[in-house]
Amino acid sequence: MDWKEQVLQNVKLTRESFLKLLKFTEKEKNCFLENLHQKIIQNKQEIIKENEKDVKICLKKNYTNAFIDRLKLDEKRIDKIAKTIKDVLSLPDPVGKKINEIVRPNGLKIVKIRVPIGVIGIIYESRPDVTVEASILCIKSGNGVILRGGKEAKNTNIKLVNLIKDALKQSGLPENIVNLITVGGRKSVKYLLQLYQYIDLIIPRGGYSLIKTVVENSYIPVIKHYAGVCHTYVDKDANLQIAWKVVLNAKVQRPATCNATETLLVHKDIAKDFLPQMAELFKQYNVEMRGCEETLKILPDIKRADENDWYTEYLDLIISIKIVNSLEEAIEHINKYGTHHSDAIITENKGSAEKFLKNVDSAAVYHNASTRFTDGGEFGLGAEIGISTDKIHARGPMGLEELTTYKYLIYGNGQIRE
Amino acid sequence: MDWKEQVLQNVKLTRESFLKLLKFTEKEKNCFLENLHQKIIQNKQEIIKENEKDVKICLKKNYTNAFIDRLKLDEKRIDKIAKTIKDVLSLPDPVGKKINEIVRPNGLKIVKIRVPIGVIGIIYESRPDVTVEASILCIKSGNGVILRGGKEAKNTNIKLVNLIKDALKQSGLPENIVNLITVGGRKSVKYLLQLYQYIDLIIPRGGYSLIKTVVENSYIPVIKHYAGVCHTYVDKDANLQIAWKVVLNAKVQRPATCNATETLLVHKDIAKDFLPQMAELFKQYNVEMRGCEETLKILPDIKRADENDWYTEYLDLIISIKIVNSLEEAIEHINKYGTHHSDAIITENKGSAEKFLKNVDSAAVYHNASTRFTDGGEFGLGAEIGISTDKIHARGPMGLEELTTYKYLIYGNGQIRE
Repeated sequence: MDWKEQVLQNVKLTRESFLKLLKFTEKEKNCFLENLHQKIIQNKQEIIKENEKDVKICLKKNYTNAFIDRLKLDEKRIDKIAKTIKDVLSLPDPVGKKINEIVRPNGLKIVKIRVPIGVIGIIYESRPDVTVEASILCIKSGNGVILRGGKEAKNTNIKLVNLIKDALKQSGLPENIVNLITVGGRKSVKYLLQLYQYIDLIIPRGGYSLIKTVVENSYIPVIKHYAGVCHTYVDKDANLQIAWKVVLNAKVQRPATCNATETLLVHKDIAKDFLPQMAELFKQYNVEMRGCEETLKILPDIKRADENDWYTEYLDLIISIKIVNSLEEAIEHINKYGTHHSDAIITENKGSAEKFLKNVDSAAVYHNASTRFTDGGEFGLGAEIGISTDKIHARGPMGLEELTTYKYLIYGNGQIRE
Repeated sequence: MDWKEQVLQNVKLTRESFLKLLKFTEKEKNCFLENLHQKIIQNKQEIIKENEKDVKICLKKNYTNAFIDRLKLDEKRIDKIAKTIKDVLSLPDPVGKKINEIVRPNGLKIVKIRVPIGVIGIIYESRPDVTVEASILCIKSGNGVILRGGKEAKNTNIKLVNLIKDALKQSGLPENIVNLITVGGRKSVKYLLQLYQYIDLIIPRGGYSLIKTVVENSYIPVIKHYAGVCHTYVDKDANLQIAWKVVLNAKVQRPATCNATETLLVHKDIAKDFLPQMAELFKQYNVEMRGCEETLKILPDIKRADENDWYTEYLDLIISIKIVNSLEEAIEHINKYGTHHSDAIITENKGSAEKFLKNVDSAAVYHNASTRFTDGGEFGLGAEIGISTDKIHARGPMGLEELTTYKYLIYGNGQIRE
């Protein structure tokens, strides 16, 4: 069997298993999660052994430290994976949830309910924690899952998927509900993206070039998790105590995340009162500042920002700063340079806040709070498969409910259309 | 300016106008619809004159009668367009509707509300009624719209879009919220499909090859409106009076629609009682029957169905008939050969009905009713832009609400993430 046939067979088996999974209850899916949790804990050393093989190969090939760090699984990280399994176990199953029910004048009862999407393809790089997290979120929400992880994590992924399959078998669930693609090299990605008869959704998780490849080659719907160029705008009516505290948190609390603020916008009327102390705080946290022309007049010692800075997701202790003439200019700047992710206004003026929240075209818009809150857990959705920067189907944090679609059940007693 | 620059300029103008449209109220959008309604009625003869130009060119080029029929606008059809405008006017605006509201333990209030998607590209063939219907549905739901219609309707489309722009201007709305692309020929379609920075969603409306081109070339999310290979399954516990009536309606009431039944599945235990009279009814309505081996034993005079028939959307007075051994076989057949559109079971057994409704992976599943009901109007959604056969974002009839997405508004008083 060549690699294409192998991929196709795996995908077809997953589709068949998805249809079988429709009949299983929440209790049975939770039983699988319970079993998987045990297996992950019991096999900790074996997982680490397989992971060490992967790490060893990558060290020889001179991958960066950051890459090795994402690839590496130690006891602490495996415990974190195990905890996520417990978290997902405790979340309510969205499948079967009633969205709406109406009775039409002709007596037809139409019930709209949540159902699984079908088969979901996850295309990701070399973070083995994604292997387990994506699988359990998809399975709990009733979906089949095709995993196509980076080749650098091959040994780890095979071990993890075997544990998942063991737990499925042990719980009486179809073991082919999850399949890992390890053949075909890079070609297998493009091939998978054409199998629209069997795969309903593709979720890429990784850097810009991975997402670009997926978007440009997919015949299957894709939900992207692009960059977060997030903004905090300090309005002329801001409470400065709140502004200093929130802006600092949005930048420094975890700068490598997509919901960290990358650009600070400041109203011209408040800039002189606000910026000097803000700059002091940034300095204490080693944040590099890059300012516009007007900012440099107040903070002459910082770097100059160029046009590219406004588009950049630093993911680091760097912030660009721009002084704007009005609320409207702030909104325009965000809609032009942002990535529709998370943006905040700091103001005591309710009218300005409402205008900002209405007109900024982003998934999450904040009034007087840190952009860092855009997260499945913080939004009460539980574990998330990622944060969508698309507008179709799911926007912002994607939890279990966002991994479902709906169907209409129509109950009649012989109705025909006239 | 070459055609690419022209297309890009139009798309950018539409994006800017979409952001402006965010501030307009339902009342202002309805005022536009009222004005458009008047203009369509007042300009009936001018629309017909432009349409006659298009029809004349197509007659010379020997297009089929069916093609000319779809292209042609007479007074009756224009009245129908005008009526649709009034229908959309009377529908509630989904924008701003609250989906959910929670307060988190840290005091953050998170409100999930409906918002427009953004800029929607409609790629369609030569049905000028789509020009108006798509525009008004997109505008009422707050979206910008790029229309790329078939070149054969060019004169008609230019006239209609000019009337829409006049009505927008008259109502104080941004006239560039709608733009028609008439340059660049076929290349303009592929070019549009790459402009993901400005267009948020593509809806193709047309035949298989148009949809295939769009799906294979788009970098932008697409919601497909593919074929409807719909089934009605007559279970062994069916009430035969209901079965005869519903099956006949599902096939003959309007056979050219996507929700008409194309395949009849019959349980083996009831086939001898059910099929002869069903065949009599089909004959009265000139329905051509194509049966499986077992069906031919009961109805020896009909044609034999081959494997291709099970996949075929006839859109005509033709039906394929298959006898199945069980409810499970019926479900498997539908999930294999169907298009996830609309499927029905006729039975008095509630357990069988529930099993069918749960396990058939389609947008609309019916118990004891005709598949013909899958329609925005019949489902209480009002006018629809089409019937999605995708599972992502919108499934089944797509009305105003399905042309929106959501965003999170988060209200705080200085919360930061720990």
